Amino acid sequence: MIRFDVRTHRRVEFIDITAKVVDAIRESGVESGIALVYCPHTTAGITINENADPAVVSDMVMKSSKMIEQDDPGFDYAEGNSDGHLKSSLFGTSESLIVEANAPMLGTWQGVYFAEFDGPRSRSVLVKVIAG
Amino acid sequence: MIRFDVRTHRRVEFIDITAKVVDAIRESGVESGIALVYCPHTTAGITINENADPAVVSDMVMKSSKMIEQDDPGFDYAEGNSDGHLKSSLFGTSESLIVEANAPMLGTWQGVYFAEFDGPRSRSVLVKVIAG
Amino acid sequence: MIRFDVRTHRRVEFIDITAKVVDAIRESGVESGIALVYCPHTTAGITINENADPAVVSDMVMKSSKMIEQDDPGFDYAEGNSDGHLKSSLFGTSESLIVEANAPMLGTWQGVYFAEFDGPRSRSVLVKVIAG
Repeated sequence: MIRFDVRTHRRVEFIDITAKVVDAIRESGVESGIALVYCPHTTAGITINENADPAVVSDMVMKSSKMIEQDDPGFDYAEGNSDGHLKSSLFGTSESLIVEANAPMLGTWQGVYFAEFDGPRSRSVLVKVIAG
Repeated sequence: MIRFDVRTHRRVEFIDITAKVVDAIRESGVESGIALVYCPHTTAGITINENADPAVVSDMVMKSSKMIEQDDPGFDYAEGNSDGHLKSSLFGTSESLIVEANAPMLGTWQGVYFAEFDGPRSRSVLVKVIAG
Repeated sequence: MIRFDVRTHRRVEFIDITAKVVDAIRESGVESGIALVYCPHTTAGITINENADPAVVSDMVMKSSKMIEQDDPGFDYAEGNSDGHLKSSLFGTSESLIVEANAPMLGTWQGVYFAEFDGPRSRSVLVKVIAG
């Protein structure tokens, strides 16, 4: 298992970690198999989406925060980040990738993102690669 | 593959199944690999989130049910649980966990939840652990 | 790894690919393990839900498009499909299935869907099966 750190700078922010995931898979030495990219935090997640035009990611941040607003008057949780917990569960805690030729089989426009929903913070990502 | 049962008591309810998942992984005997926790139902799911303060989970139930209300007048499906089907697809049917030292690598605040979206019912969870 | 093609016919559409996934797993020859069904596109995804009554899927299309409307005035991305990108991340890029007896362990009512969010298009699906 490989662990790397991510530093986030805003409350809600998607950070492209594709290069770090590629490095982790290379480091594993696995030629063919599955890679699990896992977020060990409850107000953040991992997601896959377009990494060409930054407007895609900023629109995703805008719209998901409009749907799940931080200050919904129905929230009871004292820490005030229930929006981040719900986003974490909906975007998801992990992504699984196909590994071939010791690299992830991403589509042409796909990148892997660390999705911060209650930053800024210091975060970690775990990558497990299994052969098969 | 290991199967265990979950009894739900409300229409929408998140039940902490972390201890059962830990047991299933131990029973598999796999020291290092990936565990897939799978829900074979279409109005329920598996999600990972905080298991310290119960207000986190109750806020997630409240807010997701406000976004996806049971009685949307646009729903056609005769069984009246289209909200539960949509929640199942958005929260997700399964979660994958990294296994090291014959245990799941959960973050400090993470627990694994069975997410009921059309209870109360008797439900099952499947766990598959593969070494690698 | 096995690849198959999917032709979509509407802008938003869920297409049942269960039979193709069953075929891919059979072709892999893996008796017991995990299958990863992966979408290499950023405005589409893979989801698992009921495949008995088509009203379930049409309700999911209707409600998710009401929550995430194509013409939100806050969207900046010039291609006008930010709704599809967000849906892709929320429904998810892949699904993992348990494989036993060279077949997926789906629940009674579960089918695997290719979820199109910006069609019609020609799409691909990748399936990786690992033994364990």
